[in-house]
Amino acid sequence: MEQLTRATHPGAISLATGHPAPETFPLQDFGRAVHRTLLDDPPEAMQYRSSTGDAELCETLAGLLSGRGVRAQSSDIIVCSGAQQAADLIATVLLDERSVVASESPTYSGTLGVFDARGVNYVEVRSDADGVRVDDVERVFSEYRPRLFYVNPIAQNPTGAVLPARRAKQIVALARRYDVMVLEDQTGWQLTYDASAPAPLAAFDTDGRVITMESLSKSIFPALRIGYLYARGAIAEALEVAKVRADVFTSTLTQRALWRFMDSPAYARHRRSSRALYRDRRDAFVDAIATYVPWAQVRPPAAGVNVWLALPSRISTQAAFDACAREGVLVMPAEPFYPTRVGPPGLRLSFGHIDIPTAREGVRRVGAALRDPMESRELDGIIR
Amino acid sequence: MEQLTRATHPGAISLATGHPAPETFPLQDFGRAVHRTLLDDPPEAMQYRSSTGDAELCETLAGLLSGRGVRAQSSDIIVCSGAQQAADLIATVLLDERSVVASESPTYSGTLGVFDARGVNYVEVRSDADGVRVDDVERVFSEYRPRLFYVNPIAQNPTGAVLPARRAKQIVALARRYDVMVLEDQTGWQLTYDASAPAPLAAFDTDGRVITMESLSKSIFPALRIGYLYARGAIAEALEVAKVRADVFTSTLTQRALWRFMDSPAYARHRRSSRALYRDRRDAFVDAIATYVPWAQVRPPAAGVNVWLALPSRISTQAAFDACAREGVLVMPAEPFYPTRVGPPGLRLSFGHIDIPTAREGVRRVGAALRDPMESRELDGIIR
Repeated sequence: MEQLTRATHPGAISLATGHPAPETFPLQDFGRAVHRTLLDDPPEAMQYRSSTGDAELCETLAGLLSGRGVRAQSSDIIVCSGAQQAADLIATVLLDERSVVASESPTYSGTLGVFDARGVNYVEVRSDADGVRVDDVERVFSEYRPRLFYVNPIAQNPTGAVLPARRAKQIVALARRYDVMVLEDQTGWQLTYDASAPAPLAAFDTDGRVITMESLSKSIFPALRIGYLYARGAIAEALEVAKVRADVFTSTLTQRALWRFMDSPAYARHRRSSRALYRDRRDAFVDAIATYVPWAQVRPPAAGVNVWLALPSRISTQAAFDACAREGVLVMPAEPFYPTRVGPPGLRLSFGHIDIPTAREGVRRVGAALRDPMESRELDGIIR
Repeated sequence: MEQLTRATHPGAISLATGHPAPETFPLQDFGRAVHRTLLDDPPEAMQYRSSTGDAELCETLAGLLSGRGVRAQSSDIIVCSGAQQAADLIATVLLDERSVVASESPTYSGTLGVFDARGVNYVEVRSDADGVRVDDVERVFSEYRPRLFYVNPIAQNPTGAVLPARRAKQIVALARRYDVMVLEDQTGWQLTYDASAPAPLAAFDTDGRVITMESLSKSIFPALRIGYLYARGAIAEALEVAKVRADVFTSTLTQRALWRFMDSPAYARHRRSSRALYRDRRDAFVDAIATYVPWAQVRPPAAGVNVWLALPSRISTQAAFDACAREGVLVMPAEPFYPTRVGPPGLRLSFGHIDIPTAREGVRRVGAALRDPMESRELDGIIR
């Protein structure tokens, strides 16, 4: 996957990486926050610190969850080196090669890589336009009794679906009935375009079985390398031990500066302006697909920066990828998003990190690339 | 151990944590480096970046190793979230519950915690005033054929010993003969007091079996949370995969600012002044021990911020710890530093993080605490 994203040639456009837009990075405001941190905090603040995170940043993060219906306290937060470390700590504490993990499919490949490294066994749960299907969650929970259910309720990566609160509540009730732990990735909740983000699954949790993680890389900027876990009870204690083993604590300098930034009026401005920028890009991207790839049945994403392009079953993902590369556009093939690495042909197209004209040209190239192979295979009947 | 260090009461002095001195933290100069980073680097620099580290920081770190006789290139460096993560990545790649790890004893407890989590089996190697003994390394290598040999050649934690280059060279030759991987922790090489630091073991490595790690927490400041690994060949590739799984990459903001700081004249000034400060503290601490704990046979540390106080065998570590706590001084008990958690009674006393009068008073209390129990047990004959 990394090789693919690196395999650019001059003039190629990449729709392959779901990266945020550098134009949104609040670097000036963040610089002021770093400056105040180094000026106002005593030197002792830059000493070894708590493994679970800076107290004031944890308070801020817990406050954001509370505002969304979760009874979160700052002591329930563990600040991590990105959501990747959050997933890795969960895997360290909960999973081994005997574990069964239930997962949406397709889903975020970064987390799958972490689970893969533990040699887990996957069971896939079916989804529709509103995310994971409750009836299929019940089927999988009752049949396989998985150790963990992994779900992206917001800005589902790669489909952009948003799970309604009603489903979230039902899923948590099923997890309780069948004694399944749940890991929800709330990354992207600040980037819902058409309505505010529904409550996290954790809002419906009564017995500490839902763990929430979020990356702040997308909503602030990646170089921060900060994410967090929300967890309670025995699992929270085990996660703290795992955090100490992994790297003791996350940079206090970035944590303190992040807290100051989030505590300033600049944060709300940043959220508004980046949401507006991504919404415009989303609209233009969906338009471009309607224009240049008219046969595609893509769902406009309700959140996030990705579009999932299902391919007719007679085209292989590899053939589509190669055709796109020949036209000068890089796309992400479907396989890394399938827990078992096997699934119907498809591509993930990302629009967050490039300007609208470039994205539009990228989509034009995708359309050009995928027109020929399909026509030559006389698939016109299938393609609307 | 953490509970111990937290268990302070008003007026208590802690000699229990080997933390650096906040007075040495170059926060003003580092603030300028952060400012220049956010000002001079394009926003794209704060995007997702290379998993192995910022290219310019890797160049600087490789350059420091090269200056010490290691043929290091920037591509041999993996920047980590502290040396703790470095050790954790090594353990992920090399160790499991069937592994035999040869180790000095006593040694750094943080790394032992990482190895413990993999359920490894330890074999201890004997040391003397110059660090690990070559004859005992050969005995252990030939008898047990360990997977890994872990050693602190510089500023040995907890003893402060420095391994002479001659021994380092012989140990690497033995590792080659018996096919053992070596992990050396070079943390503290900038804090040798009486001579410059000898060459790392990696300087004598011919076939990529020596991995070097270093924490910059002690020599710059902990809140940075930056350390690195130096490794070559197949093991380096496996470590990069493990780094991606663990947290993808380390904060580029702190990496870029660290590079700018290390690239400026402020870095040499910082090294000189912190070395002078710690040397003064070391001298005063050793003096205080001679005054207040005259029976103790401690070796003045040649590097680092720790003194190892071996106790007469009839006093338990626990009794000594309790007596010190009653006198209002916190010390670190010996057991966490023994790979098997079993060994002769002893205490680690650290002087880096407190001023000289406080440290002196702390040592006075240690002397007062340990005088009574020993006299009451009529150990005067043993104590010189």
